[in-house]
Parts: sequence; structure tokens; C-alpha cells
Amino acid sequence: MPTILGQNQYGKAENRVVKITRDGATHHIKDLNVSVSLSGDMDEVHHSGSNAHVLPTDTTKNTVYAFAKEYGIESAEQFGIHLARHFVTSQEPIHRARIRIEEYAWERIGAPGSDGTGHSFVRKGQETRLAQVTYDGERWEVVSGLKDLTVMNSTDSEFRGYVKDKYTTLEEAGDRILATSVSGRWRFNWAGDERQAPDWDESYRQTRTHMLRAFAETYSLSLQQTLYRMGARIIDHRDEIDEVRFSLPNSHHFLVDLEPFGLENDNEVYFAADRPYGLIEATVLRDGCEARIPVDLTNL
Amino acid sequence: MPTILGQNQYGKAENRVVKITRDGATHHIKDLNVSVSLSGDMDEVHHSGSNAHVLPTDTTKNTVYAFAKEYGIESAEQFGIHLARHFVTSQEPIHRARIRIEEYAWERIGAPGSDGTGHSFVRKGQETRLAQVTYDGERWEVVSGLKDLTVMNSTDSEFRGYVKDKYTTLEEAGDRILATSVSGRWRFNWAGDERQAPDWDESYRQTRTHMLRAFAETYSLSLQQTLYRMGARIIDHRDEIDEVRFSLPNSHHFLVDLEPFGLENDNEVYFAADRPYGLIEATVLRDGCEARIPVDLTNL
Amino acid sequence: MPTILGQNQYGKAENRVVKITRDGATHHIKDLNVSVSLSGDMDEVHHSGSNAHVLPTDTTKNTVYAFAKEYGIESAEQFGIHLARHFVTSQEPIHRARIRIEEYAWERIGAPGSDGTGHSFVRKGQETRLAQVTYDGERWEVVSGLKDLTVMNSTDSEFRGYVKDKYTTLEEAGDRILATSVSGRWRFNWAGDERQAPDWDESYRQTRTHMLRAFAETYSLSLQQTLYRMGARIIDHRDEIDEVRFSLPNSHHFLVDLEPFGLENDNEVYFAADRPYGLIEATVLRDGCEARIPVDLTNL
Amino acid sequence: MPTILGQNQYGKAENRVVKITRDGATHHIKDLNVSVSLSGDMDEVHHSGSNAHVLPTDTTKNTVYAFAKEYGIESAEQFGIHLARHFVTSQEPIHRARIRIEEYAWERIGAPGSDGTGHSFVRKGQETRLAQVTYDGERWEVVSGLKDLTVMNSTDSEFRGYVKDKYTTLEEAGDRILATSVSGRWRFNWAGDERQAPDWDESYRQTRTHMLRAFAETYSLSLQQTLYRMGARIIDHRDEIDEVRFSLPNSHHFLVDLEPFGLENDNEVYFAADRPYGLIEATVLRDGCEARIPVDLTNL
Repeated sequence: MPTILGQNQYGKAENRVVKITRDGATHHIKDLNVSVSLSGDMDEVHHSGSNAHVLPTDTTKNTVYAFAKEYGIESAEQFGIHLARHFVTSQEPIHRARIRIEEYAWERIGAPGSDGTGHSFVRKGQETRLAQVTYDGERWEVVSGLKDLTVMNSTDSEFRGYVKDKYTTLEEAGDRILATSVSGRWRFNWAGDERQAPDWDESYRQTRTHMLRAFAETYSLSLQQTLYRMGARIIDHRDEIDEVRFSLPNSHHFLVDLEPFGLENDNEVYFAADRPYGLIEATVLRDGCEARIPVDLTNL
Repeated sequence: MPTILGQNQYGKAENRVVKITRDGATHHIKDLNVSVSLSGDMDEVHHSGSNAHVLPTDTTKNTVYAFAKEYGIESAEQFGIHLARHFVTSQEPIHRARIRIEEYAWERIGAPGSDGTGHSFVRKGQETRLAQVTYDGERWEVVSGLKDLTVMNSTDSEFRGYVKDKYTTLEEAGDRILATSVSGRWRFNWAGDERQAPDWDESYRQTRTHMLRAFAETYSLSLQQTLYRMGARIIDHRDEIDEVRFSLPNSHHFLVDLEPFGLENDNEVYFAADRPYGLIEATVLRDGCEARIPVDLTNL
Repeated sequence: MPTILGQNQYGKAENRVVKITRDGATHHIKDLNVSVSLSGDMDEVHHSGSNAHVLPTDTTKNTVYAFAKEYGIESAEQFGIHLARHFVTSQEPIHRARIRIEEYAWERIGAPGSDGTGHSFVRKGQETRLAQVTYDGERWEVVSGLKDLTVMNSTDSEFRGYVKDKYTTLEEAGDRILATSVSGRWRFNWAGDERQAPDWDESYRQTRTHMLRAFAETYSLSLQQTLYRMGARIIDHRDEIDEVRFSLPNSHHFLVDLEPFGLENDNEVYFAADRPYGLIEATVLRDGCEARIPVDLTNL
Repeated sequence: MPTILGQNQYGKAENRVVKITRDGATHHIKDLNVSVSLSGDMDEVHHSGSNAHVLPTDTTKNTVYAFAKEYGIESAEQFGIHLARHFVTSQEPIHRARIRIEEYAWERIGAPGSDGTGHSFVRKGQETRLAQVTYDGERWEVVSGLKDLTVMNSTDSEFRGYVKDKYTTLEEAGDRILATSVSGRWRFNWAGDERQAPDWDESYRQTRTHMLRAFAETYSLSLQQTLYRMGARIIDHRDEIDEVRFSLPNSHHFLVDLEPFGLENDNEVYFAADRPYGLIEATVLRDGCEARIPVDLTNL
């Protein structure tokens, strides 16, 4: 047979697990979507269909739920570490595990002391937090991130001095809306058990804040510049992170021409367009570090 | 011809308008999705294709953007009132206008005084606010609402004492998660220009709060009971509202059976299911008032 | 208490049932998404939370699966009739049942006689077929339909002679693309058991064909005219149908201005826009018949 | 500054272009969604915001529409080749262009000779065809593929003999439904202008057929085995293709337990589940060839 098997992986995707922790009448929620991908000595199942090396995807699902009880869910990253270690160390044919997690945030309904305060929640609904843990038996790689965080600057953005060719019709803009829906990933330099792992939740909060502040505080000459500042600020302030990659759609807001109606539009009324959109993608690295986040960001 | 024309309407749907208002260096955003539906003396265009009575949908789009400048966007409801009045009073063949609006909320990035505070925003991302204004030249009807507000009680919910038939296998539950994604609409009793219109934004904030508190504070024997309390609390506290309708999916969270793994699951680990889901829908009315919100809630 | 309960209904939505029927080595698929809504003597559960009249939504789900075995799935409509009759006649507090069904079509992979011909399928992927059966113990109402059937005429469409007001900027078009994604519903005049029910599958096939042919064969002066012809042709040819309602987005294809690049665009290159879009909705009735399909078409 | 710029690319995503070609009264449609990504000497725009090397994304959009007129759209791949060559050869700072295209298929409404036959179409609605062309000034890489092709075998699938650990509860299955929504990509060995390029459309049709036949004709012991057969059959029959990668969700159809209702379920009634799902991903290579398709398949 003139064909050979290349990279392959399998597992159960999108296991939706909700964990309630009770602190007296006060409850805490962790709401995750967990996807498991396993690789290893799997040639035989592809060639002959023999499942002798295959831990069923159904078992990987069961493990997610059992571990939520056995270990709790301290953070998405820590939970992924428990799962990845288990699959690689407990099954000889499995050489590598990659755990991807989406996390949905909830906030409490009501003021302290009111009824329902302890156990009633509304989903925050803003960005989805992401974590990916990969383990091959020796080396750990943790990449965290977020998607669907929609931001806008209503001024302090321009776009000028670009190349003009025969297909260029765009007018230069001295004051425009800059809006995007941030999809970002950042890779930690923590690579194994001997070093203290980062405080994953605190790291997430700080990284998100730096990202938002860089977006807000940059007078933008191009979305590329804003992207770079967002990444560089994270690297500058967070020692635990060596690499950041963003995929930023330029969510165009076009100034509506109101002249036909005898009206002036002094940067007030915009049409928010869907498609097409500019798409700006780049990696920002700590100097001397290697790029490992793939060019195309994926969610699961 | 053995066929006749029944109810008909036309217009431009999903006009995305973003309005920036400048208060010195502090900017304010209104971010709407506006859909226009017009009806009237329109038999001819259906029968012969004559457009002599047809104001183009493109013109209704232009009007949305022009009015954002001419009148500003004080609230979704007020903006809808301006538009509806215009179409009905300015074109003889148009006898009725229905304006539907989705509104997306934004919050500021950064602390007061910091760079970007005045003009940098992150989309709140929680519920979508809804408003519908209908005007037939005499009578106004305003229905407001929201969709995609996801809430959860992690306890204080049970489901028991129900009918059992030959197809019933469900076990009674003494303590379950109650979660739903609220879709609600409420109808105002304001019907015309002579009475003072409600403060639409304040009414929305209060109604949302009452709804959330009723959800949180009800010890729930059934989702129907919770729904009714949510509606009744709005009617009780908000004189300007006569009718509320909710469509509440019962977003099932199933307790995972961990016994096969030698683990107890004391209401801690749940599987959040997608489909199927219970769907509970009802109208709550101020006594003596008529129901006018349609049985099936629609978004646009 | 100053509030009263209005229209209410409950049930299990989106029960995904796949039924395989074996005719020797040749298999047949029915692939449905079934939603159950029940109403009746349900005040108590809303007011006190007593479930004494409530057949659990979980039971309605079980019934869907059991009936797929007990009765088979001859057609979506016939399956809905079995379910609706059961709920209303078997539970005294239930006075009305509405069953909504989405059906997904599959076609065979491979030529006759080849391996896998009998049991291998590819999802057709075109429109979703819809059926809604309502029964109140006396009267039956069956509404069928479809959604997401995307069609286009690349010529034989114009738009001229419309009203111009101060917000009108649209140029008249003598030759344009007419494209839409058809959402249609049609109501049968069959109302009970004494008359022979229509052949639901044959009726669907014929109705769909008439609709498509009317779309294709109409030289269109407006989308309203095309819509009316589509509805009238169904009424004219199908005695079993008294009412048709369409919701037709005008999926704009804008001719791209290529003049800045020294190119002529002789109705060749179009930009397919997403939002906003025209939305044309109307009911076509057999003369003398009553309109019962709601103004806003809903899917579930 | 301790940060450096890594891989970056930019361009206009999701340009929706519809091209009508007239052959007398018979029209032909090409309906594409084209995304442009450019890379090169772009450090400066990230660091200082200078756009001196930046061809605006708006210009890349214009180029897509202009080229639809200048070159026509023979096939998605050929159209991508024209665009990629243009960007790399016409702008010195641009060193690499990647064009991604989605194609939507249409079929004619009506029988030959009937009205509207020549210019009336219904969207096929099955899979979306994909093409990606990458050019760096020297080497061409063309990857084609498809997504959302949903297939099912109603028998001839089993799953047995797998690993059992302490979290395994799954029962072995001797006869199950095997269903998936195929996402596949295949890489051509054509790498430049000197060799005759493949007939892209014919290659697509043949590849799709081989894939479907391998799916239908394989008695499946595991989805991995089926996946491998699908890939190997393409490599075996299509000389122009060296590498295939599939991402196949195992779309679980669970046999419903009807015993509580006194009914037997002889592989007839299934529940089609949404989440979680098994996810099987693998590359199949022509022996001696290098793997270049990324592990995670992306659509745009």
C-alpha cells in the first residue's frame, strides 16, 4: 500500500461539565467545555480497525466527570493538567494528550445578604476563556486565551500613508472607529512539574487587563500597531508568558453619507458592517523565545 | 382569480446603526439593529408588480441613519417612535409601521481618569435588549424585552408530584439545578402622545432587576411557578406594564452518575445538556387587561 | 393578586429522532426534530407550583421515541397526528397539543447494486421541511412548510416606478439578480378524522415544485409580485391547501462598480450582501378562507 | 524592547463574490467567499504604525472583484492562483499570499426547455467546497477540501475489543449507526507553473466520489479505519494528490431504551446526540511525501 499514516489524534470533544462547590450557603460555579485529544501508538486501529490500543472516547468523557469530583476544578488549566497526566501515564499506547477547555464566567445575582445571593447566578456573557494543556510524558505546554471579547475605540484611530495601486479607492481616514472582536492565545513558559506553576486565574485576570488597557490607551495608526502593543504589554508585564498571538478582525464601522439628506455627519452615525472585514493576525514573542502557537487559531 | 392577499408587510431588516455622542472627551455609544416593517395599501404591487405605492426598503434604511442624526437615539423605544410616526404620517399608502430594535450594551474600559476612559468600550455581552414599536396612525403599542439572559440557581429547585403515565421514567428530584436562558417581552400601557411616555431606559433597568430577583428568590417547585413569579413581580412593581410573556427553556443539568467509579455525587458534578430541553412559555397579565403579545416570541 | 395567567404551553423541544426501516438489505431513514407543546388546565402549577396536572416534559420525550417504534414514521405530519391525539386524549388536564417537526432529507450514496447502496446515505442539505399539527380534541390544524431554500434568478427581475421621498437615493434597476432564502408555510383544509387525509409527502413534493417553478417563471417587477405568484400557484394547483404565507428576505446582490479600474461590469460581478436585507412577508389565501398562520413565522 | 514580531499576516476576509456568465439565454453561476492573507516586510507597521508597506485590505477586496471580471472564475483554485500571483509579484514588500475560498454550489430549477431554465437556480446546500492557494514567489501550494458533508451508514459498523480501564462503562456494539460530518483537506503535488495544473473541478468531483464510496463500502470496525480508507482511496486513485487530512466527528446515534415501555428496539429508533461527540482526526500520506496540512483544520 503506497500510503502511510501521518499525525492523528482522537478523543471526546465538548464535554460540558458544571461543578458546584458549596461553602455553606454560598455556592461557587465552574462551567467548562472540555475536549480531549489523544495520540500515540495508533497505527493498527487505522490500518486493521483493531481497537486493542484504543481507550474509548466514551471513557475519556467519563474521566472528565470523575476528575471533576476527585480533584475539583481549581482552574481550567489545573484541571487540564490532571487530565493530561492521567491519560499519558495510565495507558501505555497513549504518548500525548491535549486537553482544550472553554470556560464560561458567571456572576452573582443580587446584593450581599439578599435571598438567592448564595446560589443564584447570571452568565457574564462576555468573552469565553480558553485553556489548552499538552503533555507528552516529559514536557508540558500550557496555552491560555480568550475569544469573542468585543472592543471599540470611538476615536484616536487613523489610517493613512498606505500603498496605493491601481485597485486602491480607499480614502485616508484621520479619525475613525476602531473595533474588533479579540481572539488571543498566550503561551506560558512553565514546562513541567519541578517549577511552581503560575496562579492561572490571577494570570488570566492580569493578562486580560493589560490587553484591554493597551487597546484603550494606544493612539492607533493601524490595527497592526494596536495588536503589537497589546501583545508586547503582556510580555512586558507577565514574566510567565513568552508568546502571544492575536487574530483581530477589523470590524468596520463606515461613516454614513448623510449629505443627500442635507445632513452633516461629524463622526456620529456609523454603519456596522458584517462582511467582508479586515483580518489582522500576528505573534508577539519574548526576545529569544520560540514561536509555537499555530498560525491559525482554533477554538476547540 | 380564486386567491386573495392577506396580511402583508415589507421593509428593510437589520440595519446596524452605531451612534457616537460626544460630551467633551467622554463619548457615549448607542449600538442598534433596526428592522422596519410597513403595511398599507399594497394590493397592487402583489398583483401587478406596480411599485407606485412602494417606498423602497433602501429608503427605509436611509431614514434610519438620517434619523439617528436628526433626532439622536435617546432610547431604542424613543427612536422607534420617531421612525414609526414618520413612515405612517409621511406616506399616504402606508397605514401601519412596526419598528423592531435590538440593542447591544457597552461598558467603559478602564478606571476614571485613565487614558482611553472616555472613548474605549467593551461590549457587555450579556442579554440583547429588544424594543418593538407599532403605530397605525391612531394607536401606539410598545413592547420591550430581552433575550439570551442566562441564569442559574444551583439549589432551591425541586420537581415532584407530577403525573405518571406508561411512558414516564423520570425520577422525582428534591434538589436540582434550575437554569434557563430568558427570552421575555413586556407590553406598555402607554398608547399615544397625550400621556407622558415612560422613561424607557429606567423602566428597562427596573424590569430586568425585578425579573432577576424573582428568579433568584423563588424556591421553585416547577419552572412554571418561577416564570409566573417573574412576570407577576414585574406587573406588581411597574405600573407602566400590563402584560409580560416569557419563553424559558429548561436548560437541563443532569447529575452525573459517578457510582461506577466508586464516587459519590452529592449535587456537585453536572452534565449541561443541549437538546432536547423543556420549553415553558406563558403570559402574565394585569387583571382586566387584554393579551396582545403573540404566542411565539420572535426576535426581529 | 392583581395578575392573571394568559396563554401558556409547555413540553419538550427538539427531540432528535432517527428511525431506520429495513426492507431487506435496503434501509430507509426518517430524521426528525420533534417539539411538543401542551396546554390545558395548568393554572395551579403556575400559581402554587403543584405539578398534579403536569405530565413531565421528559415523558413527552419518551413518548416521541416510543411512538416512532409503535407507529413508525410514515410522514412528519402523520407522526405529529399520532402524538397530538395521544396527549389530548390520554390526559384529562391536557386540552390542546401542538407538535412541531423539522425533517432533514437524505439521499443514497452510490449506484444501484454497488456496496453500501442499501445502507449508506448523504444528507441532502437543502431546505428543512417543517410540519405543525395542532389538536384541541375536536379540530385538527395541519400547517406544513420549509425554510432555508435558497434560490436565485440571474435576470428577468427589475425594480422601477417606486415612491421617491427626501430619503430616497436608490437608482432604478432594469435588470437585477433576484435572490432569496424561502421560508414558507401552508395550511391544509383537512380538519379532522372523517375526511381522507392528504398524501402528505406527495403534497409536499408538489407544493415545493410549484413554488420553485413560479419563482423561476415569473418575470419579476417586485419581490412582492413574485411572492404572490408563488402562493397563488400553490393555491391554484393544490386543493388541499387554503392558505400560504411566505417570509422572503431580499438577498441583495449589488453590482460592483468596476469603473475605477477601467472595467465594465455588464451584470457579471456582484457583491452578495448579508445585512441589511429587504424582508417581504405576505399571506395568500383561497378566496373565502380565513387566515390562521401567524404573521411572524417561527421555526420550532 | 524585549519583544519581537513573529509570524504575521493581514488581508480582507470573506469577500462574497457572485459571477454570472452568460452563454446566450443560459447563465452559469460561480458563488465564492474569498479571503486574502498577505505577509512580508511588515515589521514597521507593527512597531511604529507606518503603513508605507501596507496595501490596504480594502484594495485586496477591490482586486477580488476586478479579477472576477478580468480573468473570470474558471475554478476556485485557478481564481486563487491569479490573485496570489498578483499580490506577490506586484508589491515588493509582499512576499507571500494565501488565498482561501469557500464555494457554494447551485443547480438549475426546472426541466430543459422550460421557462426560467436558463437563469433560475436553487442552492445545492450540501457541502461547502474549499480551496487554499499559497504562493511565496517561488513555490505554489494548493490545498482543496470540503466541510459539512454529512454522511451515515445505518449498519456495517461495530466497535469492540477496546481498552477497558476503571472509567470505562461503554458496552461493546456489534451493529451501530456510523455518522459523521466530513471535514477534509487534500494537498496537490502541483507546485508551480512549469507543470500542467490539474483539472481542479474534475479532481474535486472524483475525490469527493472516492471519499463517499470508501465511506459507504467499508465495513467499519472503528471510525479511524473508515477515515484511513477514505484517505488511502483518494491517494490510490488520484495521482495529483499526496496528502489528505480528515477531521471526523463521530455523530453519535444512541439506540433508545424502549424496554420500560414494553417495546423492543431492534436497531430502529435512535437519539441523534449533539454534544459531546467523538472526534477523529488523521493525515494519510503518499509514501515518501511530507505532511504539510496543519493538525487543526480551519475554514477561512
